[in-house]
Amino acid sequence: MRIPLDRQSDIPLYQQIKNHFREGILSGSFAPDTRLPASRKLAHDLGVNRITVETAYSELEADGLIYSRVGSGTYVLPPQTITSRPKDNLEAAWPLWQHNVQIGSFENDQFLKNDQHPDPIRFSGGSSAPQIFPTNDFRRVIQKVMRRDGMAALDYGESNGYAPLRATIAHVLASQGLQAQPENILITAGSQQALSLVSQILLKPGDTILVESPTYGGALDLFRALNFHVVGISMDTQGMQVENLEKLLQLHHPKLIYTIPNFHNPTGTCLVSSRRRELLVLADRYNVPILEDDFVGDLRYDGRTQPSLKALDPGGRVIYASTFSKMLMPGLRLGFLLIEGPVYENLVNFKRVNDLATSTLIQRALEAYVTVGRYQAHLRRSCQIFRKRRDGMVSAIKKFLPNDVEFDVPQGGLFIWLKLPGDLSSDDLLPLALKEGVDFVPGIRFFPDSSQGMSWMRLNFVVQPPEEIEKGIRRLSQVIDNLSDNKWTG
Amino acid sequence: MRIPLDRQSDIPLYQQIKNHFREGILSGSFAPDTRLPASRKLAHDLGVNRITVETAYSELEADGLIYSRVGSGTYVLPPQTITSRPKDNLEAAWPLWQHNVQIGSFENDQFLKNDQHPDPIRFSGGSSAPQIFPTNDFRRVIQKVMRRDGMAALDYGESNGYAPLRATIAHVLASQGLQAQPENILITAGSQQALSLVSQILLKPGDTILVESPTYGGALDLFRALNFHVVGISMDTQGMQVENLEKLLQLHHPKLIYTIPNFHNPTGTCLVSSRRRELLVLADRYNVPILEDDFVGDLRYDGRTQPSLKALDPGGRVIYASTFSKMLMPGLRLGFLLIEGPVYENLVNFKRVNDLATSTLIQRALEAYVTVGRYQAHLRRSCQIFRKRRDGMVSAIKKFLPNDVEFDVPQGGLFIWLKLPGDLSSDDLLPLALKEGVDFVPGIRFFPDSSQGMSWMRLNFVVQPPEEIEKGIRRLSQVIDNLSDNKWTG
Repeated sequence: MRIPLDRQSDIPLYQQIKNHFREGILSGSFAPDTRLPASRKLAHDLGVNRITVETAYSELEADGLIYSRVGSGTYVLPPQTITSRPKDNLEAAWPLWQHNVQIGSFENDQFLKNDQHPDPIRFSGGSSAPQIFPTNDFRRVIQKVMRRDGMAALDYGESNGYAPLRATIAHVLASQGLQAQPENILITAGSQQALSLVSQILLKPGDTILVESPTYGGALDLFRALNFHVVGISMDTQGMQVENLEKLLQLHHPKLIYTIPNFHNPTGTCLVSSRRRELLVLADRYNVPILEDDFVGDLRYDGRTQPSLKALDPGGRVIYASTFSKMLMPGLRLGFLLIEGPVYENLVNFKRVNDLATSTLIQRALEAYVTVGRYQAHLRRSCQIFRKRRDGMVSAIKKFLPNDVEFDVPQGGLFIWLKLPGDLSSDDLLPLALKEGVDFVPGIRFFPDSSQGMSWMRLNFVVQPPEEIEKGIRRLSQVIDNLSDNKWTG
Repeated sequence: MRIPLDRQSDIPLYQQIKNHFREGILSGSFAPDTRLPASRKLAHDLGVNRITVETAYSELEADGLIYSRVGSGTYVLPPQTITSRPKDNLEAAWPLWQHNVQIGSFENDQFLKNDQHPDPIRFSGGSSAPQIFPTNDFRRVIQKVMRRDGMAALDYGESNGYAPLRATIAHVLASQGLQAQPENILITAGSQQALSLVSQILLKPGDTILVESPTYGGALDLFRALNFHVVGISMDTQGMQVENLEKLLQLHHPKLIYTIPNFHNPTGTCLVSSRRRELLVLADRYNVPILEDDFVGDLRYDGRTQPSLKALDPGGRVIYASTFSKMLMPGLRLGFLLIEGPVYENLVNFKRVNDLATSTLIQRALEAYVTVGRYQAHLRRSCQIFRKRRDGMVSAIKKFLPNDVEFDVPQGGLFIWLKLPGDLSSDDLLPLALKEGVDFVPGIRFFPDSSQGMSWMRLNFVVQPPEEIEKGIRRLSQVIDNLSDNKWTG
């Protein structure tokens, strides 16, 4: 134990030792029944006389903070009254630098916690349905891997990722129509880290990034934190309005185009073919890289499949980001990038300085778990379940919400993007909805220009079974009615 | 399957489909025996006639790339000759932006891979001994946690970390003499991510960071990648020469002081008490935060324990980073920060935009595994083993290396920092050492000014048992002799 002692101080050493334990016990950092070090051991560690430690201990015991058991040692008593942590009252005394951070500011989400309502129904989630995660299968696989690999499963791995997992990912991508080589794949801590690494490699603070408006809120938060200038390009039911792209490229000289062409977050739209090709042509002409976020590109419930932008890339124009978090298990935090060209090496190095590598154990377990066949079986099953849930939400909306809400039926993905009637604001609606036990993400979270999006909300339709969805939408209809009534009467 | 089709192209659709598979098979992205989608299914997905797909398949079969099994499906054949990947020949055609990255450049390590020598002995590692990792215990704990928590173990967690693990860390820190509250702890992906988050919150590109010279190479890489101006402060056997600090603060106005006061990497020294207090006083006077990297502060083999800088902090002056990677299992990638004051919230938010959160499963497993008692038992055991290995390396060096090498015996930690005699360069030595099956980290990796450190090398003494250490040092003595001889004769 390393207790700070000041040998130049006027406070006697026994008193310093006593004060140290006293503070720790009262503040709770020593839990009740924690065993204190033997006095001889502590005296040796601190280079003090054993009497000094024993004096401190006996005063602590006299103060009712510790007790000894004969032949066993000295233990912490539960404190009678937990005093408030002393350091918390020093707000005014924080050093100045504490108030001078270099990252930009952004919103902080506040959604439904389980304890706010006895029976909460969450439509605010950003990922797939946890109930269909193959938890038991995965548990067995982890066992197998740890038995097979022993300490190698818990040692450092390569910065670009476990080679067999990179090969598996290449095969899964190929099965989905995207040809990839393992040496072009970089394993990341979820797709969020993928976006963070790519954007930091390509932009410096003050540089411009072009994004769809609306777009994924977590990307906006990231780009704002990194002090990028975020410019939005408008969307319609066919995705990004690429016909407006050239003038934005000329005006803003963005260093990167961030796009979600498949089952877009939050709108659920897919970019049509002709626009995909035009987007690639313009990006090439203006020498701007494209970061394609294909977070749920495979989750299609009807309609014709679309190749990813990356599949149309003649080479090194598009950086492709995807993840296992949405499809399989979010808590694994495992995503990947597909990158060609010299920038690959830069990304691997930047990954290395940021966190050395992603957890070896999780990578090995995922590699042992995922085969092309298993992935596709899980995909088919997910699509079946999610199609029903989408249909369930669509009919619940038609049945229970006012006739003048607007939305398109998405052909895949996770979200329905819904416009409230009149001048109803989803921001005003949220606190009322939380009280009724239902939530959603308000539209302003998704717009680069946060004065937009007040009428919109994003609803995740894959997390709940259809009957829960219906119940949730009915709750929502209730609060919309109440808010509308207040508008007219108040 | 999402195959890119160009309906405006002169190339017939069947040919486009055929080309897609052809490329994929030849490049290896479709593994042998992969099953191709049924023609009816693929035709539906792509919105083409079934005949179109069947024509493509029959031509692929004629080319010897696929085969059908009656009643079972169509499968990929092993390619006779793997052609080189076509995109690799386009180096010259990479878009310009590929060559224009925003991160600073830094060295890339090249150390002993297992395949370069039949019986390699590595002294280059940066972490503890994998052989003493409690792999089996940890495997059982993961099982228990996945059975207990089910899907919660695989879902998203809180950005600042799993609350019970933060409480456990607070108790472990208290048992080591550092009082901490769970709400001041932030779980990170190893201490590398801790350094990355803190330095990015406090510095922008071009700002100055003050580091010990020498210091941890991974930190230097990070700071260079982030385009910080890195200023070194010299060290002696008592750690950072704090008497030179004030003039550097006045001259360079650093935004952060990064320091490893305990069993410093690479030198193994500990900062003496009087300098610790002086460092805190100066940092406070000049309003500069201190980032204390306490990566192995507990691994003491002899001498009196020293409190961490953080234990001397009156509140919010020192940000403390540590890790379980060195002590327990590196591949877990689990570290933590202890932070007080407003900057805590900023760090949590910045963590969130960077990777949402660290793997829930690993956090829960570690929480179930680590108790104060278990941690201390593991620490005692590690110290016993490592003390012997340190003593083994010290006596091997004295026995086998030239009398005029210089080094201090470290009281703890992982490293011996060794100075070669005369004008021998550790950079020249490394390739020869690799050939003999031994490695180390050359000194220049650790200096902000890379013209320094040529005479030095860092040797990790904890990874090998004493007999291997002796063998490795004998190999090293061989190559030193050879190099010295060449100097004289060549």
